[in-house]
Formats: sequence, C-alpha cells, structure tokens
Amino acid sequence: MGLNNSAVTEILSDLESSRPRREELYKFFHQHPELSLQEDVTAGRIREELEAVDIEVHRVGRTGLVAVIANGDGPTVAARADIDALPVREESGKDYAATDATQLDERSGAETPVAHACGHDVHISSLLGACQAFQAHRDQWAGTFVGVFQPAEETAEGARDMVEHDIAEIMPTPDVYLGQHVLASVPGGHVGTTPGPVLSSAASIRVVVHGKGSHGSMPELGVDPVVLASSIVMRLQTVVAREIPARETAVVTVGALHAGTKSNIIPDSAELLINTRAYDDGVEKHLHEAIERIVRQECAASRSPREPEFTYYDTYPLTDNHPASTAAVRESFDAFFGERSVDMDPVPASEDFSVIPDALGVPYVYWGIGGFADQENAPGNHNPGFAPDLRPTLDLGVQAIVVAAGAWLAGDTL
Amino acid sequence: MGLNNSAVTEILSDLESSRPRREELYKFFHQHPELSLQEDVTAGRIREELEAVDIEVHRVGRTGLVAVIANGDGPTVAARADIDALPVREESGKDYAATDATQLDERSGAETPVAHACGHDVHISSLLGACQAFQAHRDQWAGTFVGVFQPAEETAEGARDMVEHDIAEIMPTPDVYLGQHVLASVPGGHVGTTPGPVLSSAASIRVVVHGKGSHGSMPELGVDPVVLASSIVMRLQTVVAREIPARETAVVTVGALHAGTKSNIIPDSAELLINTRAYDDGVEKHLHEAIERIVRQECAASRSPREPEFTYYDTYPLTDNHPASTAAVRESFDAFFGERSVDMDPVPASEDFSVIPDALGVPYVYWGIGGFADQENAPGNHNPGFAPDLRPTLDLGVQAIVVAAGAWLAGDTL
Amino acid sequence: MGLNNSAVTEILSDLESSRPRREELYKFFHQHPELSLQEDVTAGRIREELEAVDIEVHRVGRTGLVAVIANGDGPTVAARADIDALPVREESGKDYAATDATQLDERSGAETPVAHACGHDVHISSLLGACQAFQAHRDQWAGTFVGVFQPAEETAEGARDMVEHDIAEIMPTPDVYLGQHVLASVPGGHVGTTPGPVLSSAASIRVVVHGKGSHGSMPELGVDPVVLASSIVMRLQTVVAREIPARETAVVTVGALHAGTKSNIIPDSAELLINTRAYDDGVEKHLHEAIERIVRQECAASRSPREPEFTYYDTYPLTDNHPASTAAVRESFDAFFGERSVDMDPVPASEDFSVIPDALGVPYVYWGIGGFADQENAPGNHNPGFAPDLRPTLDLGVQAIVVAAGAWLAGDTL
Amino acid sequence: MGLNNSAVTEILSDLESSRPRREELYKFFHQHPELSLQEDVTAGRIREELEAVDIEVHRVGRTGLVAVIANGDGPTVAARADIDALPVREESGKDYAATDATQLDERSGAETPVAHACGHDVHISSLLGACQAFQAHRDQWAGTFVGVFQPAEETAEGARDMVEHDIAEIMPTPDVYLGQHVLASVPGGHVGTTPGPVLSSAASIRVVVHGKGSHGSMPELGVDPVVLASSIVMRLQTVVAREIPARETAVVTVGALHAGTKSNIIPDSAELLINTRAYDDGVEKHLHEAIERIVRQECAASRSPREPEFTYYDTYPLTDNHPASTAAVRESFDAFFGERSVDMDPVPASEDFSVIPDALGVPYVYWGIGGFADQENAPGNHNPGFAPDLRPTLDLGVQAIVVAAGAWLAGDTL
Repeated sequence: MGLNNSAVTEILSDLESSRPRREELYKFFHQHPELSLQEDVTAGRIREELEAVDIEVHRVGRTGLVAVIANGDGPTVAARADIDALPVREESGKDYAATDATQLDERSGAETPVAHACGHDVHISSLLGACQAFQAHRDQWAGTFVGVFQPAEETAEGARDMVEHDIAEIMPTPDVYLGQHVLASVPGGHVGTTPGPVLSSAASIRVVVHGKGSHGSMPELGVDPVVLASSIVMRLQTVVAREIPARETAVVTVGALHAGTKSNIIPDSAELLINTRAYDDGVEKHLHEAIERIVRQECAASRSPREPEFTYYDTYPLTDNHPASTAAVRESFDAFFGERSVDMDPVPASEDFSVIPDALGVPYVYWGIGGFADQENAPGNHNPGFAPDLRPTLDLGVQAIVVAAGAWLAGDTL
Repeated sequence: MGLNNSAVTEILSDLESSRPRREELYKFFHQHPELSLQEDVTAGRIREELEAVDIEVHRVGRTGLVAVIANGDGPTVAARADIDALPVREESGKDYAATDATQLDERSGAETPVAHACGHDVHISSLLGACQAFQAHRDQWAGTFVGVFQPAEETAEGARDMVEHDIAEIMPTPDVYLGQHVLASVPGGHVGTTPGPVLSSAASIRVVVHGKGSHGSMPELGVDPVVLASSIVMRLQTVVAREIPARETAVVTVGALHAGTKSNIIPDSAELLINTRAYDDGVEKHLHEAIERIVRQECAASRSPREPEFTYYDTYPLTDNHPASTAAVRESFDAFFGERSVDMDPVPASEDFSVIPDALGVPYVYWGIGGFADQENAPGNHNPGFAPDLRPTLDLGVQAIVVAAGAWLAGDTL
Repeated sequence: MGLNNSAVTEILSDLESSRPRREELYKFFHQHPELSLQEDVTAGRIREELEAVDIEVHRVGRTGLVAVIANGDGPTVAARADIDALPVREESGKDYAATDATQLDERSGAETPVAHACGHDVHISSLLGACQAFQAHRDQWAGTFVGVFQPAEETAEGARDMVEHDIAEIMPTPDVYLGQHVLASVPGGHVGTTPGPVLSSAASIRVVVHGKGSHGSMPELGVDPVVLASSIVMRLQTVVAREIPARETAVVTVGALHAGTKSNIIPDSAELLINTRAYDDGVEKHLHEAIERIVRQECAASRSPREPEFTYYDTYPLTDNHPASTAAVRESFDAFFGERSVDMDPVPASEDFSVIPDALGVPYVYWGIGGFADQENAPGNHNPGFAPDLRPTLDLGVQAIVVAAGAWLAGDTL
Repeated sequence: MGLNNSAVTEILSDLESSRPRREELYKFFHQHPELSLQEDVTAGRIREELEAVDIEVHRVGRTGLVAVIANGDGPTVAARADIDALPVREESGKDYAATDATQLDERSGAETPVAHACGHDVHISSLLGACQAFQAHRDQWAGTFVGVFQPAEETAEGARDMVEHDIAEIMPTPDVYLGQHVLASVPGGHVGTTPGPVLSSAASIRVVVHGKGSHGSMPELGVDPVVLASSIVMRLQTVVAREIPARETAVVTVGALHAGTKSNIIPDSAELLINTRAYDDGVEKHLHEAIERIVRQECAASRSPREPEFTYYDTYPLTDNHPASTAAVRESFDAFFGERSVDMDPVPASEDFSVIPDALGVPYVYWGIGGFADQENAPGNHNPGFAPDLRPTLDLGVQAIVVAAGAWLAGDTL
C-alpha cells in the first residue's frame, strides 16, 4: 500500500508549469477575503476551478464544498482546507495586499475590514493544486481522493456546520483525514509533524454571578459582586496550580471582568469571561468542573441570591494526531522532503479540524508547513501583517498533501 | 446673648398668613428643578423674592447668592440652603410633580430629566421664609443675618465654587454657620441634632492598574491585570477589617471593576472605582493611604510595568458639628419645639456644607428636619418618589432657622 | 427610695480607720493569687473575713461564695467581685509583689506562675469592705445586701458554674446586680459609667478544615489545606468589611493558623483559632453564621473530603448595662463623687459578669474605677506589670459599691 | 569504541555463581541501615569487599569512597551508588527486614529508627557487583572503571561533601558519569531511560514574615501576620498559574504555615515552608524570584515592620540526562535487554546525583531499574514497606552498570 516515490514525483510533475497560474489563483483568494459562513465568492471560485478539470463537487451547507476524485479500487484519503478570513485590516505591505477589503458582517450588520491573516488562502490553493494534480495523473494512483473545503474555522462553526449538513452521507468515508496549516513556527519550506496532541482544546465560558445592589455606604444591605468576582478570580488560580498534574498543560485565563458603573453604588452582578486550554480531554473536563465548582461555592460563601450562570462558547476540541497515521505521514515526508521534514512542538492554538473525522470515526493527521524564510521576523497568525512567502510555500502545500495522501493511496494500478 | 422666646415668636408670627404664598413659592421651585451650576431660573426667582422685600443680594459665581440683612450691632449668623436638583425623573405622584421636567445638561449636551428629589426646594423656601421673617421683624433682633443660597451641592462643587468666587470678601464673617436638611430619618415635624460628626466624609478614587497584554494561552508573556485587580479587591477588605479601630465608622467600597474584552485575550489594564466613607479625618486619611499602599504593592507583586494611577473625585469633607454651637442650637430647639426636638443619629451620607465655614474658619451646625408623617413608607433622599409633606415641613424649615439663629442674635434691641 | 447622702456618709465613716487593715487584707489576696476554679485559699480567707463580722455565707460550687446581709424590708441589691488570678509571673516591682507565686494547674498538671494581673484582688477587697460597712451600719439602711464572690472569670467559667450550682435558689433575687472593674482607662480616683453595651461579647472558635495529604510535587492527588485555610482567612476579612454595618463594632481575628510539618508534604488538615467581638447580640450571631458559612463553602470549593469542625470556647456574653439602672447609679455617683464621676467609653474586653443577672432575669450595671494616678504609663490589664495604686483605689472600690447600692436600698429606717 | 556483546556477556558470566554471595551481602547492607553522613559500618564493609579483590579504594570525606579499576588505555567511566538510609521504621514484612534497626542521630542526639526504604542497598550491591565483575574480567575490556560510593543522598549533602573533599583530585576525570535507581514505576526486571530532564530540581524555602502583635480586639494597633501569610499563599498560586509557560513543569507548594498561639492574640510573625520543583533551571530561578517578589510586596502591602527572611534548604539540582550519552546507554540497553529496555517518564523526585558530574564538567546518565514483579501493589520509595524483590533486581543492577559502561569502555584488548 502507498505510492512509491516515482509515482509521487510524476503526480507533482506539473508544479513548475502551473506555478504562475497557482500564484494568480492564490492572489485572487487573498484579495477576496470573506467572513465565516459568508465565503460565497471564495466557494464559487473553488467550484469553478474544480469543475474546470471535471472534478465532481458537492455543496455542504451554504459555502462548504466536497470534491471527490474516484479513481478505481483503493483506499480513500480526505484532505481539508479551511477557507474563511478574519475581520482585521491587512497591514502586510505586500503589493497584492487586500488592504481595503471589507465585507458586510451579516450578524452585526456592520461593514467590516477582512483579511486572510491566518493563511487559509494558502490552504485553499494547496488543496486545489493537489486535486488538480491527482486528477491530471489518475494513471499514477488508485483509490479515491476527497478535498474538503471547510468554511468558518475561525468561529469554530464550519466543521460542525458540515457535519449537520450531512457530510457523512455526501462524501465517501475516508481511511484517513488530513489537514495542514501554514505557520511561522515551522522553518520556511519545511513540513512539521508531531504525534498525539498537536493543538489544544479550548473553550470560553461567560459566567454571570449575582450580588445584591446597595448604596456604597451600606454594604451590609447588599451582596457585593465585585468582592465575589475577585474572590473567584483568586480561587481560580488554584485550579492550574493545585488540581492539575504539573506535567500536564492547562491554562485558565479570566480575560475580562466587568461589574458596576459608579464608585458609590454596589452593583447587583458581575460578568467574567473565562478561557480554558488543555491538551487532554480529561484535563479539560476537570478545568470546567473546577471552574463551576469554585464559582458556585464562592457564590454561596457570599450569600449570592441567585445561581450563577454559565454559557460556554467558542469551544474547540482537542486536535490529537493519530499516532500510527502520523508515523505513516512522517515516513512519507522523510522520504520526500529529507531534512525538510522536522518535528514540530504542539501549537498553543485551537482548531475545529478534528470535528469532521471525529464525527466520521476516522483517524486524522494535522501538520504544519513553514511559510517564512525570515522566521524570526515573521508576524504570527492573526496578526494584520501576516502574509506567507509565495515561494516555496504554495508548492510546499501541494506537495505535502500529495506526499501524505500517497502513504495510503494504492500505487499498483499499472 | 440670644433672643428670648417672645422675640422668636414675634419674628415667626406671620407664618400662618404667609403659608399659601410660601407653598406656591415652594411649588415653583419644585417645578423648576435645575442641574448643578445651571440653577439660573432658581437663582433668578430667589433674587426676585429677596429684592421684593428690600434685602441686599450679592451674586457669587454664576448662580450662588448671598443675602445680607444688616440690623445694627450684634453677632452675625449665616444660614445656608442648597439649591440644585438631580438628574432623575420625578415619580412622586404629587399633583404638583415635575414629572416631565428636563434640562439640557451642559456637560454631556444631553436633554436630561431633572427633579428636586433631595428636598433642596424645601431648603430654599425655608431660608427665604427666614430671611423674610427677619426682615419683617427687624425690631425684634439685632446683628446681621446672612442667607447663603449655594449651588451644586449634589456634585460637591458649589461650596468650593463660592469660595473660589470670594464669598469670604462678599459676606460678613459670621459667628456661626447654620444648615439643615429635610430627612425621612427624623420624624415628621421634628428637628434632630447631634454634636460632632453628623455626615461622613466621602471620596471616590479612580484607580487604573497596568498589566501587559498577551494571548490568553500565554499568560507568562504578559502581566494579568484581572488577577492583579482581584487581588487588590481582596486585600482592600483588610483595611476596614484590620487597620481601622472597630469602634470607628469606615467604609471602602469598590463599586466598579472593569478589565478586558475577550475571554482569550489578557488585557493590559484594569480600572477600579473606589468609594470611601469616614466620620473622622484621620480615619479618612488612613483609608486613602492604605488604598494607595495596597494598590502600589500589589502592582509590584504582579510585576506591573507602570505605576498605577489615582484620580480622586467627588470628594466631600466631613461634616463635624461644633459641639458648643450645637449645644446652643439644641437648647433653643428644646425651648421652642419641646418634645419635637430630638437626637439624630449621624447620617450615612455626605455634603459640601462645611466647605464654606471651614474656609471662613467659623463653627457650624447642621441639623435635620423631618419631612414625612408616614416615616416608615417615606422614600429616601434621591429616590424618584421623594417629596416631603408640605405641612408642617415648610413651616418647620423656617422655624428651625429662626430659632437656631436666635441663639446668637442680639435681643436687647428694645 | 434610695439612701440620702448622710446615710451613705455614715455607712462609709470607718474607711479611714479600717484602711490599714484593708490594705493588709488586699496584700494577702495579692500574694495568694490562685488559678480559676482553684481559688481555695482566697475563698477561705473571704469566708473568714465575713464570718468574723457575723455575715451569713453560702458556698456555691467549689470556691464561689454568697454573703447575705438581710436587714429588714426593702430592696435587695447584689454586688459581685471576681476572685481568680492569671497564669502570669508578676513583674510589677511592688514591694508586696507576688513575683514567685506559683500554683499547680490542675488541668495541665504543671506548676504555673500566678499573679493578680487583672485587679481581682482590688475587687475582693472592695466588696469585703462594702459588706463590712453595711453590716457595721445596719441602722442606716434597710433591705438586703448580697455579696457575690465569683470564681473563674478569666476562663468564663465561674458565673456559669455558680448558676449550675443553683445560686438562684441560694441567694435572694436581687432588684439589681452590680459589678465593677479597676481600669487604667478611667482616671485614677474616678468612677466611670456608660449605659448600654459596656463590654463586648466575645467567642473563640477552633476550626479544623480537612484536606487530603499528598507529596508536595503532586498536589493534584491531594486537597491542599494550606491554600484552603488561606482562602478562608482572606474571605473572613469580608465579614466585617462587607456584612456588618459600618457603625456597628465588630471584630473577627484569626489569631492562629497551623498546618503542616514539612515543605514538601501537603498536610491533611489545618487549624484556625478565630476570635470574635461584638457589642450587639445580633451582630455576634451574624459573625458566627458568616464564619461557618464561609468556612463550609470554601471547603466545598476545595473539594474538602470531610466537613469542617467548629468548637466554640471561651464564650463571653455581651455586657449591656441596663439604661435606667445605670442612670440611677450615675445620679448617685454624681452626687457623691462630683467631678470624679465621668463617662466611660465601652471597653474592648469581655466578662462573664452578666451571666448571673441574665440567669436571674434582673437588670445589671457594670462600671469602671480608675486605678492609676499616672494613667499614661499604667500597664494594661493582664500585663505582668499591672498593679493599681493602693490609695485611693481601695477606698474608691468600697465607696462605689456602697454609693451605687444606696440608689436602691431603703433609707427610711430611722 | 564500546564493548561488543560477547565481551559484556563474558564480564557478567559469574552472576549466577555469585548470586548467593551477593544476596547475603545485600542483606547485610539492608540490616545495617545508617543515617546520612553516619554510614560508617556500610562504608567499612564496602571497602572490605573491594579490597578483598584488590581494588584500589580512596576515602572522600567521612564515609565516601571511590574505587578505581585502571585497566590500560581507554576511556574512563564512573558509576555512582548512594549508600545512606532513612529515619523510618521498616515495615516490609521481609524475613530479612531490619525492623528494629536504630541509630543515634548525631544531630538531634536521639536514637532513631533507620531503614533502607529507598533501595540504596540495591545500589551498593549492584555497584560492588559491577566492580567485582570488571576486576575479574580485566581481559575483556580496557580503560578505567570508577565506582563512586556516595553518602548522604537523602539530605542532599553527600555529593557536595565529596566535591568539597576534593573528589576531583582523587578520581580520574571520567568521560561519563552513570547512576541508577531502583523504582516501582519501571516494570520489574526492566531498565528505563529518558533523555533530558529525568528528575526535577527541588528547593525548600523557610520564609518568616513579620507582623506586629496586638490584642485580637485591636487589630489596628498591630499588623496581622495571619492575614499577611494567607494573602501570600493565595498570591503564590498565581506563579504557576500565570507566570510559568503552561507546557513547563513547575510546582510551588506551601507545605506548612504556622502562626499564633491563641485566638485572641494577634501574633507577631508567621512562618511558611515552601517547596519548589522544576525541570528547567530557568523555571526554577523564576519560581524563586517570584516567591521572593510576592513575599516582599505583600509584606509592604501589610506595613510589615521588618524585612521577611528567606532560608533556602534541601536544594536539589536538576538531573538532566545528557542526550547523546543517554542515546548511547539506550542503544546498549536495547541490545542487551531487548524488550526489557523501555522509555521512562521523568520522575517527580529529586537527587543530588548530578552535583559531582556538574562539578567535574562531564556528561551524565541516570536510569531506572524496576524492582517489583507486582508493580501495582509496590510501595513507593520512602514508604516503610519499600523492599524490592531480590530476584532479578540484584542481577539487573549489576547488568545495567556493566552494559551501560560498556558503551564507552574500549573492547579491542584482545
């Protein structure tokens, strides 16, 4: 099983000739950034590109697309690209920068600056390039290659949206589900892999605790929610410091705390916005239980007149690379990229990539591709200045997908 | 020294005949509530009323007025009425309610509801009535009676404004400075006195503490101002609990705490709005020193990158009745009001009444007059429903001033 | 009702002649200090003194004594002296100091230094002097005078012990119950009175909170009782600062906190010794409820595996002088002592004095007598250097009892 | 470089015949447990055993020994065994248990139970066995083998003691320094290795903070060290939770907190015993700086009258296996032990093993050997029941040293 090196080389043989076209295509996506679940132009162009080479395309939800290249008996490999942009104004200084790009945010109703400050345009271009390569060289492999163009990664909604719109029935169940992200933490031109947890789980919790308002000179007639919230914040420090094993990675951050309007009025509630991170589902569960426990008991200690309220939002699952599948990808990467295939540390960020393979019950591998020759001065993802080098990044993204998929696809078709 | 009972009775002999006119006048003020330092209509009507009976009137600042009734050799007594209203919508249900009264707030530029929800209209009417009584019965007393109509008590600005506009040069220096407030905590128709501290000092402090922003998953790269502010709030509880003698009265309230916007972003600062109350200047000084000490040291404990900022505002001095002068007032009250002269507990509120006598270096006495027959259901000062009973409150306010002033004025004029 | 001045003067007419004897007697008690409930020598000598002048004496418990002087129809007045000493070594430097006095502490089994560092020897001498005066001058008064010699005030046990040993059946029910204490806060030779709360209630609470031990490197396997106890201490600061009206007097002190033995072992429990003070029973109740609430909820917030334990000890009731009776005593004091009868501030200390009158359902008055001409350098009660001036303190103590009792006793006996 | 398999096999060929003798020897050490720096009997027997086979022995300090087997040109390898026991009473139930062993503790002057509850007797026996094997089979290898018998590991004093007694001049500088520990966390009969940090650094800090004593009813006259210490404990939770990267391993435990004796006396100081753990020297440094910063600033926030005091004790360095040397050991282990050579997780414990190689500037490798067939029910190190299986543990300890040293020693001697 798996393609040999010459097959992979053959599949990738058009990279040089297609480079100008692929760079133009990348710039189109870069200059048409679109907000999550509003990626209409982006999805339209993806479909156009795929249909231009006779690839079967299915729509999943408003802007999700699944491309299926069935090529005889053999394993099925899916690769995913996320396609949405961010509500920031680009400040990359590139000549193809989308500095003035805006879009009407359908939720807020406001015209909003938008930019591909997270590199999803690289991901789209790479997956399209891989689809086109597999389609152009069907004689070099057998099986089925599926391209999943997923909306709304930035809001953790897109993968769930595709699951809810029955992606499981629309696409053939893959043997493995692949994904990649362009990063400044991997050296330019390199691919980075790590087995096991690669991206943390994350959740946000809006907590409202209730006091009882009073004049500031008569605290005894009220229940002071400022003191209550402050005690909660201090107590929450003990969760990571005392309840989680020191060797585990966990973060509890209270990013916002708001209560009251005037110095001499004791308000009747306080709001805390809490963020958690973990690389283990048990740890994440413990964090949430501990937060709820502490908030509830501190409310009781303060004689809070009403139960606190907990609203979870922006919840991202753990991305936990399947060890054997990751080892298979790594072996292919080592063979193809040589010293440019490196270890990667887990990334302190979160993704909804794993939602679809988890829904399908299939293993997945998520790797990083370097995007910057000058790694040291590269702006981080989400920074307004983020814009990867075009070369060799666009080639690298195509290569990585083809090489990784080649670890599963059948090569004995001749 | 001091008027005898028959002189006082004579001076007050017109109360019954003037009652309808005084009630109309009260309703005029009630229906023309004006914001602090914008009391133009109010001040105009006061001047008109005084000049109608040939009383000498001086303007001090934009809306402050000083009425001087010089009546031969003898002591000088000043009495003060505050004249501003509050930015609340009246909900008293009285037939003379100013439910729809609004005024352009010159600071915010917004049209704002306004109401005399603190009884300053009673104070104006009472002081005008006393002035008119002293003027009408100059043969019953000797000395000088000064009426101080002070703006902007609600914002703690008016007394300082009059001092800055040279009230010390405009009015004769009094032997005593008197003031009164209509209250629900004194039985209707009664006058209440207490020697020593009668109103607390109060101050508000806006504290900004600086952290260092970071992504919520990387607290080690930042300084968390939410934790810093929370630790400050918990530590501030020790000021009253550990640093102030248990028998002293002191309050430290953090009425508002604001930091951050998102759960996963560590913000770079936090703001606390703190209010302090005390009945002793040394205690107040200790509270402020302790707050600054704790904030500074907690910032240092957190590695805060910048000094915290402290902005004091809405500072009210202690109102600390001069014991001998209060005893003199009490004796006159006991003689005139009999059982309706009662002890009053210190009031957990603050005033700028003492600013002028302190600037002049003269003793002062501040008392309460009851405003509600149904004391139990009376709304508190500043409540939208606050509206004292007209009878006997309006008479009582005049009587109290005349009786109290009578303890100083010379009576040997016959 | 009440004795006139000449009767009181007559009753006290032997003070000068008896002074040498009374001073010798005082020195005897001073040099025979005895621990609480072990006052055998002291009680023996008291009984001897009383029986020497034919006063009827009843034993109540091991060392409590009640002397009854029934003298015809009339009111009954009881006065109490506490008789125990303290386990401290005297450092007064007096030539009659009991520097080397020790006693076997029956509870600990240890030989312990003992001293009258709280002035109970003055109290005994004074009450004996008053008994002898009343007995010697039965013709000057009518009614019944009762002397209550109470053990174990220092441990809050003696008054309860006398109640349990049926003092109510042994002594005639008095119309008023009187008590006094020699103090440095009252000027030497003066008597000080205050109506209402004069001594705070006090209670001690031993709180044990349970964690779960673990190696210091693995806190996640345990429940850290050091953090739990610390959070409780910080939270307890909010009780006085936020839950009690600022004008009330309340103190919550954690005087001791103990947990653990080694730096790298998380212990399994922590002990807190908490002391509360209040001048109002409702406030004290609130303090205790708040402490229990906070401790329980903080335990729950920490996942404490067992309920916390609360042991109340050294509980002293509020001493709350009966206003009308205090006014009667004050009137007598003013008449007899003139300017040496003064107001006294409430004392931040506690007593079991009120236990017996509360059990009997009778009003009580507790006053202070000054013990030091050099008030400023006087050591406080319980200080090893505490030793009042003999003159005029010993006379003053007799006078105060006779004068105060005179406000009730019948004087129309001639 | 390095011995081939047949040489290693030859060197170890006497294991079976020597087993009864080695087990007797082990039992001798087990039954003669001795406290740190008092290992006189132990050191005497070790010297005896070595000299019996003509190995050169040097004393370093009171009980430290260095055995040197110089065998021609070639690399020098040192292996270390720690030799002291613990002040616990053995409860292993073994028939050779030293249940009644006691020793006079020279520091405390108390007769103390002693036991080899940490397996150092296994370490001694193993290193002696290895020395004897290398000596008996000098024809199979070349170079120099050094056995370091180090006292006082349990108190972190022994390695420093040997350094101070010039071990650097006494022993030839090795190319690598090896050490091992018998553990329950490695499967019985297995050897476990890990590159990089294998044991944490650890330090204990005694912190004394100063308040100012006062009566419990008058906290304003004092500075409450119980509140101060509690605030420090709460603040210390933020060090791990906020200041250390989530992926680093760090622990700050306050294992003991002591202040005060009575509920109603505010004491004048508090003592905290703090323990820190880290797997990185920079992290450890940060922990200590943060603890000192927080303690100092909290003292200042409390108006502490004196500087806090910090006493560091029981400081253990990081044990950070040299990666290349560990890889070399692992390769030899894999070749010799096959599947019984496994990965080992870093151990949450600390050692002074690295002190000597760090002083010499040479790389080191520290590995674990399994000691229990029934791993699940095995008591942990320091537990009174700790007693490894004799078989195969005693053989394994000898094998591991010989095999690991074989990776360096010259094998071309034939």
